Amino acid sequence: MRAVDIIRAKRDGEALSQPAIDAFIAGVTDGSWPDYQASALLMAIVLRGMTAQETAWLTDAMVRSGTRVDLSAVAAVTVGKHSTGGVGDKVSIVLAPLAAACGVIVPKMSGRGLGHTGGTLDKLEAIPGFRVALSLSEFKAALRDVGCCLISQTKDIAPADKKLYALRDVTGTIESIPLISASVMSKKIAEGSTAVVLDVKCGSGAFMKRRDDALELARSLVAIGTASGVRTEAFITAMDTPLGYAVGNALEIAECVQTLRGKGPKDLETLIVRLASRMLRLADRATTDLDAESQVRHALDSGKALQKFEAMIERQGGAAITNDVAALPRASQREAVTAANNGFVVRVDAELVGRASMALGAGREHTGDTIDLAAGIVLHRKPGDEVAAGDPILELHFNDDRRLPDARALAIAAIELGSAAPSPVPSVLAWVHATGETSYA
Amino acid sequence: MRAVDIIRAKRDGEALSQPAIDAFIAGVTDGSWPDYQASALLMAIVLRGMTAQETAWLTDAMVRSGTRVDLSAVAAVTVGKHSTGGVGDKVSIVLAPLAAACGVIVPKMSGRGLGHTGGTLDKLEAIPGFRVALSLSEFKAALRDVGCCLISQTKDIAPADKKLYALRDVTGTIESIPLISASVMSKKIAEGSTAVVLDVKCGSGAFMKRRDDALELARSLVAIGTASGVRTEAFITAMDTPLGYAVGNALEIAECVQTLRGKGPKDLETLIVRLASRMLRLADRATTDLDAESQVRHALDSGKALQKFEAMIERQGGAAITNDVAALPRASQREAVTAANNGFVVRVDAELVGRASMALGAGREHTGDTIDLAAGIVLHRKPGDEVAAGDPILELHFNDDRRLPDARALAIAAIELGSAAPSPVPSVLAWVHATGETSYA
Repeated sequence: MRAVDIIRAKRDGEALSQPAIDAFIAGVTDGSWPDYQASALLMAIVLRGMTAQETAWLTDAMVRSGTRVDLSAVAAVTVGKHSTGGVGDKVSIVLAPLAAACGVIVPKMSGRGLGHTGGTLDKLEAIPGFRVALSLSEFKAALRDVGCCLISQTKDIAPADKKLYALRDVTGTIESIPLISASVMSKKIAEGSTAVVLDVKCGSGAFMKRRDDALELARSLVAIGTASGVRTEAFITAMDTPLGYAVGNALEIAECVQTLRGKGPKDLETLIVRLASRMLRLADRATTDLDAESQVRHALDSGKALQKFEAMIERQGGAAITNDVAALPRASQREAVTAANNGFVVRVDAELVGRASMALGAGREHTGDTIDLAAGIVLHRKPGDEVAAGDPILELHFNDDRRLPDARALAIAAIELGSAAPSPVPSVLAWVHATGETSYA
Repeated sequence: MRAVDIIRAKRDGEALSQPAIDAFIAGVTDGSWPDYQASALLMAIVLRGMTAQETAWLTDAMVRSGTRVDLSAVAAVTVGKHSTGGVGDKVSIVLAPLAAACGVIVPKMSGRGLGHTGGTLDKLEAIPGFRVALSLSEFKAALRDVGCCLISQTKDIAPADKKLYALRDVTGTIESIPLISASVMSKKIAEGSTAVVLDVKCGSGAFMKRRDDALELARSLVAIGTASGVRTEAFITAMDTPLGYAVGNALEIAECVQTLRGKGPKDLETLIVRLASRMLRLADRATTDLDAESQVRHALDSGKALQKFEAMIERQGGAAITNDVAALPRASQREAVTAANNGFVVRVDAELVGRASMALGAGREHTGDTIDLAAGIVLHRKPGDEVAAGDPILELHFNDDRRLPDARALAIAAIELGSAAPSPVPSVLAWVHATGETSYA
């Protein structure tokens, strides 16, 4: 099957056959398809789309481009989690030990931050000594002993996805629900979980700005997971405002500790309780949602969740931070952005806060850029809060003051005050069940 | 201007600015745009289209990627000609000396055959000794002394087009009216003609199968030429049946000689008289169409056109063939395909005859394949002719009998007999004037 014929078929709006999709992914993996043919096909897919069946075949071919991890010796049921990325999104770091404290085995391979969104691996590396690059056997042993483990993707997880993603990034072919779905799900399926909970972020700070797009992506992801025998559920969650108060690697780890103590920000806690409860249900550790939620709340209140986090950090070589976060890197300078007048906070724009945090050094513009683990932003107020002129709305944490002007301008632009409080936005906007059925809020 | 932003703009259906198009073509020319970005943009152009203004800018950028030949020292008015390619299309080889015999200066750079269509350069090389690779100064001198000259494109004519064409060929991005238009017209404009007559072939043996597409292409080509100050006209001409009777390089040269003697096949003669007449009008060598046609017919009947062909061949180093074509290569074997029953020839499919001829060795499947200059097909009957069972309909000329079975099967498939003659198809289907106005037949 010639590459050019496959490209022409998709260009003309045809659905590709499974052998055609297999040929594409095998060609990308072994390098026999040159990048210029792959990118032409990717653009044709972006503009012509793919059916659910094509997307499932694409995902499957990408899984088979590498290894599908077998965790059956660790546990019969393992529950993964994935977020499409947001600002202040430290959910995985809280959720893994929380669910594990309730008996769920949580294997999780994560990525690094890029652009205005952070990455779980960068955040974990703010803990001195924390190792994210475990071998597969270390990963399995940690899951067996601790119950959760957060590592970087091993190189044999969906290698076709790595190549395609690098190409999509420079050819304007990121924005495609079938391509995003196959990328996310091929990794999740290859990582070996038997069930997955997905957090599809929606709003200004997320990749999906519109609720309809987020819902379409969520349904596509769930359909692929189900087709591959993985029990998959997706939540559409709000990302117009940063999640919690902390944005930036070390700052977010400190907020994770606080949240695992049962004293986290309300929006973050609401979300982790909801997701953790679903993880318990998917792992058959609870018979009703109420039962699941009560176990989760108990794990937070009893300190068991925090202990699990401590055990995970210790297992992965990190310094003790759960009693005292002083070991985390701290920025040498701080500067507050204050309210210009009395009123209500109407908006703290997630994308602009993310960009301000990146400008302070907390994120990377290009893959491979080094980051400042201590830099970031702490919100003092969130939408709905009343403020008086001069009250601090957020605080910039930084080490390099040449970075301040750009960051401050972005942070100021992120804030909108008004004369009345906006209507509150729920944390969870919709829930796509494993059956594909959708519940709202 | 980043490549990825230009790609994304076109992906999203925006019209590109002139600086964006210039950046693309400059990047392709100097190699700073990697092929994978160029091919992604090409696919976005195929699927999203380009406005007339974008197409004109693209053409202009491609002209400026190399040299625009200046023929003003040779003549104030020079008239080029281009065909989009067909089967048995030897029009340029007849037309150049014919128009030159009437005082028109005809500079022509041509290409080689690929796939089922032949190329002017290959046909000319069937004349022993004929040189197509003249330098620009030899080209100008020949135009000054003889009045016409047919050569291969020099390497500094629209180099961006050469790179893009090679990429389009393997990425399924040939089929785009803006891209085809810019490719054709950038070369014609760079070649330095002040006027151009275009022959847009339409039918089974042509790139454009449908009349609407051919018309759209013709209008696009004329608009670009006009925008660049080149007087441009286009004819849509029939290509469901091979043009004339001969298909294959040496066989077509022999038919050219016959046609220049005034004894050519009717369809070919009708076409060349029409095109040559327009060339005289564009060169201001005739004041009315009737005057132009009478000069053209005189050049054929008087032998002046044939003498001009002889002079051109001599100037370009070729053997004398105009009195006796015996110097042309001749195939060692022939085999006829005959009528299975009495009736009328309804169809001799141009594409299938072209593929049969290629199968005999007359054409190339891939750039760089060697070809057999003697191989080809001679039709004995054309659509509308009555036949008796056993009458030869066409004859295969070949040197390598391993090539016969495939070619014969294709040739048989090309022929359709019926109980009644089909309605005759005119040679010229439509004419797009330099003003953009269209006349039909």
